[in-house]
Amino acid sequence: MSMNITYKESAVRGNIWLKGLFGIEKENIRVDKQGVISQTPHPAVYGDKLTHPYITTDFSESQVEMITPPMSSVNEALGFLETIHDLVSIELSEELLWPQSMPPVLPDDDHIPIARYCEAGKKNEEYRKKLAEKYGKKKQTLSGIHFNISLNETLLQALYQQSIQILSFEQFKDEIYLKITRQLLRNRWIYVLVFGFSPVVNQTFDLKCQNFPVRICTKTWGLSLRNSCYGYGNKQELYPDYSTADRYNRSIQKMVEDNKLMASKELYASVRPKFLNQSKSISYVEARFVDINPLTKVGVTPEMLHFIHWMAIYGLLTEEHDDFSNEYQTIANSNFRYVALHGLDDKIPVKTMSGKEVNAFSEAKAIIQKMIELYSALEINQTDYLRALEYALQIATQPELRPVHQIIKLTGENGYIPFHFQKAAEYKILSEQNSYNFKGLEDMELSTQLLLREAVRRGVSFEILDRAENFVRLKRDGNIQYVRQATKTSLDNYSSILAMENKVVTKLILEEHKIRVPKGLNYTDKASAKADFNYFRDTAVVIKPKSTNFGLGITIIKENSDHLIYERAIDIAFEQDASILIEEFIDGKEFRIFVMNDEVVGILHRVPANVTGDGVLSIRELVIEKNKDTLRGKGYHTPLEKIQLGEAESIFLKAQDKDFDYVPRVDEVVFLRENSNISTGGDSIDFTDEIPASYKKIAVKAAQALGVKITGLDMIIPDYKQEATEDNYAIIELNFNPAIHIHCHPYKGKNRRLNEKLLDMLGYPALNQLP
Amino acid sequence: MSMNITYKESAVRGNIWLKGLFGIEKENIRVDKQGVISQTPHPAVYGDKLTHPYITTDFSESQVEMITPPMSSVNEALGFLETIHDLVSIELSEELLWPQSMPPVLPDDDHIPIARYCEAGKKNEEYRKKLAEKYGKKKQTLSGIHFNISLNETLLQALYQQSIQILSFEQFKDEIYLKITRQLLRNRWIYVLVFGFSPVVNQTFDLKCQNFPVRICTKTWGLSLRNSCYGYGNKQELYPDYSTADRYNRSIQKMVEDNKLMASKELYASVRPKFLNQSKSISYVEARFVDINPLTKVGVTPEMLHFIHWMAIYGLLTEEHDDFSNEYQTIANSNFRYVALHGLDDKIPVKTMSGKEVNAFSEAKAIIQKMIELYSALEINQTDYLRALEYALQIATQPELRPVHQIIKLTGENGYIPFHFQKAAEYKILSEQNSYNFKGLEDMELSTQLLLREAVRRGVSFEILDRAENFVRLKRDGNIQYVRQATKTSLDNYSSILAMENKVVTKLILEEHKIRVPKGLNYTDKASAKADFNYFRDTAVVIKPKSTNFGLGITIIKENSDHLIYERAIDIAFEQDASILIEEFIDGKEFRIFVMNDEVVGILHRVPANVTGDGVLSIRELVIEKNKDTLRGKGYHTPLEKIQLGEAESIFLKAQDKDFDYVPRVDEVVFLRENSNISTGGDSIDFTDEIPASYKKIAVKAAQALGVKITGLDMIIPDYKQEATEDNYAIIELNFNPAIHIHCHPYKGKNRRLNEKLLDMLGYPALNQLP
Repeated sequence: MSMNITYKESAVRGNIWLKGLFGIEKENIRVDKQGVISQTPHPAVYGDKLTHPYITTDFSESQVEMITPPMSSVNEALGFLETIHDLVSIELSEELLWPQSMPPVLPDDDHIPIARYCEAGKKNEEYRKKLAEKYGKKKQTLSGIHFNISLNETLLQALYQQSIQILSFEQFKDEIYLKITRQLLRNRWIYVLVFGFSPVVNQTFDLKCQNFPVRICTKTWGLSLRNSCYGYGNKQELYPDYSTADRYNRSIQKMVEDNKLMASKELYASVRPKFLNQSKSISYVEARFVDINPLTKVGVTPEMLHFIHWMAIYGLLTEEHDDFSNEYQTIANSNFRYVALHGLDDKIPVKTMSGKEVNAFSEAKAIIQKMIELYSALEINQTDYLRALEYALQIATQPELRPVHQIIKLTGENGYIPFHFQKAAEYKILSEQNSYNFKGLEDMELSTQLLLREAVRRGVSFEILDRAENFVRLKRDGNIQYVRQATKTSLDNYSSILAMENKVVTKLILEEHKIRVPKGLNYTDKASAKADFNYFRDTAVVIKPKSTNFGLGITIIKENSDHLIYERAIDIAFEQDASILIEEFIDGKEFRIFVMNDEVVGILHRVPANVTGDGVLSIRELVIEKNKDTLRGKGYHTPLEKIQLGEAESIFLKAQDKDFDYVPRVDEVVFLRENSNISTGGDSIDFTDEIPASYKKIAVKAAQALGVKITGLDMIIPDYKQEATEDNYAIIELNFNPAIHIHCHPYKGKNRRLNEKLLDMLGYPALNQLP
Repeated sequence: MSMNITYKESAVRGNIWLKGLFGIEKENIRVDKQGVISQTPHPAVYGDKLTHPYITTDFSESQVEMITPPMSSVNEALGFLETIHDLVSIELSEELLWPQSMPPVLPDDDHIPIARYCEAGKKNEEYRKKLAEKYGKKKQTLSGIHFNISLNETLLQALYQQSIQILSFEQFKDEIYLKITRQLLRNRWIYVLVFGFSPVVNQTFDLKCQNFPVRICTKTWGLSLRNSCYGYGNKQELYPDYSTADRYNRSIQKMVEDNKLMASKELYASVRPKFLNQSKSISYVEARFVDINPLTKVGVTPEMLHFIHWMAIYGLLTEEHDDFSNEYQTIANSNFRYVALHGLDDKIPVKTMSGKEVNAFSEAKAIIQKMIELYSALEINQTDYLRALEYALQIATQPELRPVHQIIKLTGENGYIPFHFQKAAEYKILSEQNSYNFKGLEDMELSTQLLLREAVRRGVSFEILDRAENFVRLKRDGNIQYVRQATKTSLDNYSSILAMENKVVTKLILEEHKIRVPKGLNYTDKASAKADFNYFRDTAVVIKPKSTNFGLGITIIKENSDHLIYERAIDIAFEQDASILIEEFIDGKEFRIFVMNDEVVGILHRVPANVTGDGVLSIRELVIEKNKDTLRGKGYHTPLEKIQLGEAESIFLKAQDKDFDYVPRVDEVVFLRENSNISTGGDSIDFTDEIPASYKKIAVKAAQALGVKITGLDMIIPDYKQEATEDNYAIIELNFNPAIHIHCHPYKGKNRRLNEKLLDMLGYPALNQLP
């Protein structure tokens, strides 16, 4: 071992140590209402399991595999996994995802369905058949979680700069990842000791241990049966050479040549260095010893992964005292298997690498303590990592607090199948409630989150190019699309966007197409605007800046008769823009009409924050009640915002001679705000089906007049129950970046699924609708 | 006459009275080097005379007619006319535009070419043949200027609001325009008295007067022969009915039925109400009594048109004391014709409408005085109108100051043909010098001006949709294009624009396409950026905000070894943006490479303000010399800016131990600025032919990688004499709104005609290159 970076020598400090790319793969067995492994095919909505980047199958047709792309933090990867999990759950109408690494009720081997592939994937099917012969189908239904870790390139470069640099940078990185691999293999027993979650098994699973053919009964418990000799593993002990990337690959190749393995991927080492795209250098390290945690929906918690990640960094910065040749690998493997099987016992021994027997918990405690010390020494400031370490330390001190004991208790009380089935059912409801957020990307705009959720469903892989700007790249087959803020796409040409952005130009074009817009004039100097007082005299006018979008600087004068008021409004508008509009004010309801590809796909009306009385509750209580809606949140991360009980609301109520304690009569609607913005608690109400087709035709014609494919058009309609005529409506503006989430999750009305329609339009039809 | 708006009753005040739409039509005969009417066909570059919106022919094939669209001020219309005039002049390689209403040397009638038309225009050709028969070809070669006036719609509405409103708004407008017509007909003699410009004629023109067949010799002078009985006019006096629009049209129709006219357009009244697109309402008033002013390039000055415009407003707001029936029309016509013929005499009489004879100059003075009073009464504030009125007043007082006397003097001294020919030649040189501005639109960006100049040449009609935003609409045949700032077009899709706008995304895409960009990282928080000091240590780095374009917040550190300097640079960058880039600094020359439609169409390098010594002149003198270049101006209205001799330059010279009085040696180049911005006097140097094709290929590949059709790409090339390799260049950014003018008018090098290429790309090929 030539390399020995220790943190004492390292000048690199700070959170850069936590940067990197993190991916998670997770399997869950689909089960039917009896808790039996499903006999139905992989849902067609996920298309071809060979090509879907996020949702596929593992060994069994019923074993859904969820794969996140590499994400830049553990929490993002976890969020991505949760989103995939939710989408899969929601789609399985009659089935549930089995929340346990150990399988549900299994039929005879003959009835465990091997994953079926189309012609292009026949090789995969053949390989699975061979696995079934070699290991038995039941063992292949064990499910788990793989966690992939790579370090930040800048960190690696900085470490390289400080090294003696006798190696190339690529070789240096290989050394780093191999050291992490070796150290994780040495220390993984600590993880299992804390986070083992597969203590029980159903009697339909044949408990056979390949090392010693012992049978144990259903009630017999282990800590992590999946990681034990009863779980998954090669038929014989194998010893890869972990000294260099090249030697590692050659040692595996030799095992295949010697028929110890059918293929290199059959090496079931619980930590593996991985080579992306046939690279000769290592791209990341894969940790495969993670049990599904049945006590949480997704099966994996931040603590579990933060602990492993930090164990990797700790290993990297800690000296190795042996060469990890076969004898030392045997010690590491024994510790791991032994703890997995016997770890519920709090007096078990493990061997140090020098061969000394020590108490597992004391040893774990000592190592976790050192991990915490390293955390401080490197000046890292990220509380959830520290929390994970402190949690592990506590567990090592009080093993009885381990959640595995809860599983044992509850399976004992309710039975293995009923307990897990009940959990699965609960988790499904939770998934259904989480219908709009993309977990881990909650800081992005809701419209983008919705688009990306649907992208995952459709097997459209995506990258976030600029997170703050909601700029993403979508890709499926050859179709690459750049999308910003969900609705800024390649489908619109630039000059149409500019025409929408400019209210004067928009109105001019619409007028030419005989579409009604409020009559008015554009001014670039105050004097001219003020001089035209007579022109606008005695009419209802709205005076507004040309290009602000936030309602700032807008004044409505219902009857323009006082020229001081008129002039003041002009001054106010000019404070926001160098160019203003004075327009006739048209009274009526304002509707947001979403036009996509010459079709109206959603119509929404916004109503100011309000409550409807029941004769019993006060306004305050009605607000609290209304705010319980899961669609309402704070800070724009939800489709609707909570109604506030603040000063603005209080003043507005006062003007109606009311206060928060007023009890509205049955069906009395009380408004708490004048403006209808969603951001101040307004309601969004879907009118897509209520608005007559005659208005929709006008909206489509307007979009076509400007040559736009995606637009949110604001139309005033005084009485939508009348068919549209030449002059009973007016278009106020066309928005070039309309939100889609308001149409997907309105306060009242249907989900208009604009995210799905956008993807259709971008050339990504649903996978079950491919030709 | 039911309507009698006077300014006393009118509450409308201010410059709105001057608003409206104004168009000019002008004819010039093309002449050859002998001053003879040209025998060559209308230049092919202007395409079909039936469809070109701006450049066509009148009666004769050699009589170029230039037509401006309606513009929102007189000065803009004049500027537009000047631009057409310049473009036509520049295109006529061997010929000149005859700058006089009276014709040049004319051959016999048989050799005066009637305008030839393609099949679709045969009717026009037939009509011209009939005119030739009826009036003789020579008379048809008289050329003049038509000035079209309409009032601002808001003004009209405001006047209507104040009226008793027994008429519809359309009828009200007709009344307005008819009153203006009648009043202009009554008062036009005043205009001619001041602005008559056709005193002399060549002997090849047959001076015949249709009213009294008198012959006068070549030397005989009039004030405005074109407007006199020797000029253009119907064969007999005709009296249209000017009382209502309907009656007006019927009276003309009757003349056609009675064979007094071949068509309604044959009515040669010198003021006509005009009906656009077969409308039944009047759209504007056309004044046709304007002689070409041979003392100016374009043939018409602001004074001439401001005077007419104000005469129209004055007429509108002045009471009429007669019904303008035939007898009163006769008075008006006689005054006009009489002044046109005898107006050089300063004691001529005119008749008032009540029949009283008064001295023309005294009467003119009195009326002009009233026009000035009205100007004050209406609280108008526009000096050039007042100047025109005061000028006219002075002329009426001192008729000998009239410019017509100069024409008489100079034609007397040099001869009619040589004088005008000499002027024509001078004007052509002036036109050639004016190669980049669109007159009247000089406040718009130069790139837009250049695009619009070429649009005019190609018969692409345009409208300015938003002047401040340089937003125009182009149209020819069915092809409508919206263009903002010349290079924001429908050819680019929105997401490609957004990708260019975002430096992080741009770099990512280029890197994926194996195109070299400066390596670097993006940061959104200071701490992370500062923590990476070691990563960037001892290298040359540039630290810059992600999205500013003005050079603000950029620091270059040639050797990054002091972390305080590094941290300060990060702070400075974060002052400009919430996201910054730290990149390797690549030394070399920066080139702007313009890519259009997958082709490099221009490459430019910018050099800081500098002078080259001659061993004699001081820096100060060299700067003054260099600033004489007509490409240099102030305030971005020219392709280059003048070099300043200010504090910044002085400090920069001081650092070189020089001052403004230093005399550089022969060929010594002295820089006066560090930055190469054109705005501080930098030079633009064309390198389109110098840069090897290998770099151009990379530029095109980069544009294609982002899917953009129009981009200005900034590339650093350390040594452009070397062919491009993988790593001897770097692309800094792609600009989505690159200027075109810098490539059209560089300090050194060819005009790369990007305006022409843009129009090609937008689907408007040159008219002589149509299939």
